[in-house]
Amino acid sequence: MINLSMQEVFPTISRSIAIPYQLRVLFTENAFDVANPLFRNLVCTQESGSRRKVIFYVDQAVAAADPHLEAAIAAYFHKHREDLNLKGIHLLPGGEAIKNETEFLKDIYGHMESQKICRHSYIVAIGGGALLDTVGFAAATAHRGIRHIRFPTTTLGQGDAGVGVKNGFNFHGKKNFVGTFAPPFAVVNDFAFLDTLPEKHLRNGFIEGVKVALIRDQEFFEWTEKQADALAVFDKQAVRSLVHRSAELHVNHIATSGDPFEMGSVRPLDFGHWAAHKLEQLSDFRVSHGEAVAIGIAIDTLYSQAMGYLDQPSVDRILELLRKLGFALYDPELERRNSEGHLAVLDGIEEFREHLGGILTITLLRKIGQRFEVHEMNTEVIQKCIEDLKSR
Amino acid sequence: MINLSMQEVFPTISRSIAIPYQLRVLFTENAFDVANPLFRNLVCTQESGSRRKVIFYVDQAVAAADPHLEAAIAAYFHKHREDLNLKGIHLLPGGEAIKNETEFLKDIYGHMESQKICRHSYIVAIGGGALLDTVGFAAATAHRGIRHIRFPTTTLGQGDAGVGVKNGFNFHGKKNFVGTFAPPFAVVNDFAFLDTLPEKHLRNGFIEGVKVALIRDQEFFEWTEKQADALAVFDKQAVRSLVHRSAELHVNHIATSGDPFEMGSVRPLDFGHWAAHKLEQLSDFRVSHGEAVAIGIAIDTLYSQAMGYLDQPSVDRILELLRKLGFALYDPELERRNSEGHLAVLDGIEEFREHLGGILTITLLRKIGQRFEVHEMNTEVIQKCIEDLKSR
Repeated sequence: MINLSMQEVFPTISRSIAIPYQLRVLFTENAFDVANPLFRNLVCTQESGSRRKVIFYVDQAVAAADPHLEAAIAAYFHKHREDLNLKGIHLLPGGEAIKNETEFLKDIYGHMESQKICRHSYIVAIGGGALLDTVGFAAATAHRGIRHIRFPTTTLGQGDAGVGVKNGFNFHGKKNFVGTFAPPFAVVNDFAFLDTLPEKHLRNGFIEGVKVALIRDQEFFEWTEKQADALAVFDKQAVRSLVHRSAELHVNHIATSGDPFEMGSVRPLDFGHWAAHKLEQLSDFRVSHGEAVAIGIAIDTLYSQAMGYLDQPSVDRILELLRKLGFALYDPELERRNSEGHLAVLDGIEEFREHLGGILTITLLRKIGQRFEVHEMNTEVIQKCIEDLKSR
Repeated sequence: MINLSMQEVFPTISRSIAIPYQLRVLFTENAFDVANPLFRNLVCTQESGSRRKVIFYVDQAVAAADPHLEAAIAAYFHKHREDLNLKGIHLLPGGEAIKNETEFLKDIYGHMESQKICRHSYIVAIGGGALLDTVGFAAATAHRGIRHIRFPTTTLGQGDAGVGVKNGFNFHGKKNFVGTFAPPFAVVNDFAFLDTLPEKHLRNGFIEGVKVALIRDQEFFEWTEKQADALAVFDKQAVRSLVHRSAELHVNHIATSGDPFEMGSVRPLDFGHWAAHKLEQLSDFRVSHGEAVAIGIAIDTLYSQAMGYLDQPSVDRILELLRKLGFALYDPELERRNSEGHLAVLDGIEEFREHLGGILTITLLRKIGQRFEVHEMNTEVIQKCIEDLKSR
């Protein structure tokens, strides 16, 4: 029984709204030195009732590398006790395991509940990507969103994932099955945290800088070429400059792509990532994210050339830069076969499409600094690119 | 060791972004009659890969009141099988209990995982507020947000909470401790669901219509006065018109308030709610939300007068309308004392402030249709208002 005049009597209500956010990344060194005003000024610029309540979550590995960190935070809050109210410093394990255990989430919610944290309070996370993802998810969902400040402590975090707008938690072992888009109140890149990083972790962050240069900024690519020798020996100033520009291009991309919350299927920041995600998984994460992305970029660079989009000199420059920065461009995992006898890494294409949800959309290069998208890939050509990489 | 030139060498990165949303409420009757094109057109207007995957969650009480609903949905999807792909119809209990049990959340995530639901698929919820809150939270957080369509089945849901931008889940029994702001893909108000509602539940929705008229729209208040006799006997056309206008004013408020995601402390849609929330809680939810809000509005109306903001004729009109619509304006729970011997309902003020997070902000009336905010309340005056209500 359809009332066809329904729409005339009760018309559809439709209104547009736009939610404004400010994406902010601040740079400093030793944020909790009592003489450093940055954190206090960041937290106290906003209208608020009284002393700002703050809870800290710190990566155990970071606390171990900097045994004075907890005392420094406490001293900082003591000095600024008229404005700041420390409501706890909690250590959490880093690494992907934290994202599988709902007990950690419950603990964080429990702290917020018992400390009467409200939407004008602050949750600060200091650590690697997994810790930032977990604490970020809890902060984004407690009281429908507590102000959240992130301190990424790796080059990868400071230049890429840590300055983004996503958080995540695993479900049944599926990475980031649960999460939200939630721009943090601010990101603070404290360069002092990089000083204690192992070289392998320092290098991991370089690759996302190269990636964002390749898809957006030829000039930054050329800067990286010139700095490659300094970066290869982890020169402090070169590393910091790369992290700053990488973060800036990342934030620019989010702000200008037209799709910061990824409603569509285009993910240029995932250049080279379809193969990388699969390679990490096939190797049981022996191959780190940074190492895997370097190989993924090498594959899609060669593929861009093989399909006639990118010229030979550009390919040579890209592969040479990756090599100079210390990345391997091949891993035996690329030869692994799936149960049907095909190259297992190729399954990453379909998994990437499922992840996007809609139509397969892969970013390729037309020039250094200029990307475009395709909606299918020729698997025979990909295999030849992989063989090419092996032979080099 | 502070590097004071840090900000010159590595300047703060700051970019503004605005995330656009469309708030949509559609009205229909018998959405899953095979002759009704509304649902198919709603789901198929957007770009998408192929047949749209849809999972349904239906309130057990709604399914019991309409035993043909599941078969109707299945027949609808069969007719539109070229466009629509039914991935399950799951019954869930209604009522607040569902919001305390993480097992329900895990079940919903599990369905989305096993059915390979992606961000271009749809999660549909049909039911009362608690079910919409729970399914809405799961949809907003799986894959960082699946398209979500709500069918509120009560007058309260269709005119107020169901057309808003919030979801929620309880933690340690604290209502909506966890949740997000997430505008649904669309809300469908199917009036056929109201036909089987008990009168008490039908009446509950009236009060949020009166509330939004009082704070925003004198003309709607006067319309409601004229229709009061028809509403009191639940005349179908009068009820539908009230729901439509109430939903429209609610959506208009979200779209034009300047703070749709409640970053600040002003909550005009919570007019009368500080006392209402406390009264519900003191009565162990014997007093329903609608009944409690009617009493809360009566208290804050008398308080607006006692403080010299609102004139006597307006007060009389407001209380008379509430009475005509069948609401009691007093409940013995208002006399309950807390452990310190004070009126327990007054504790609702501090709890409301904590909920807002910042400064206490209470909405009062200057005229019918014109609200304003105060930042403190005189508890002696409130007590006199409560005594006044008792004596009437």
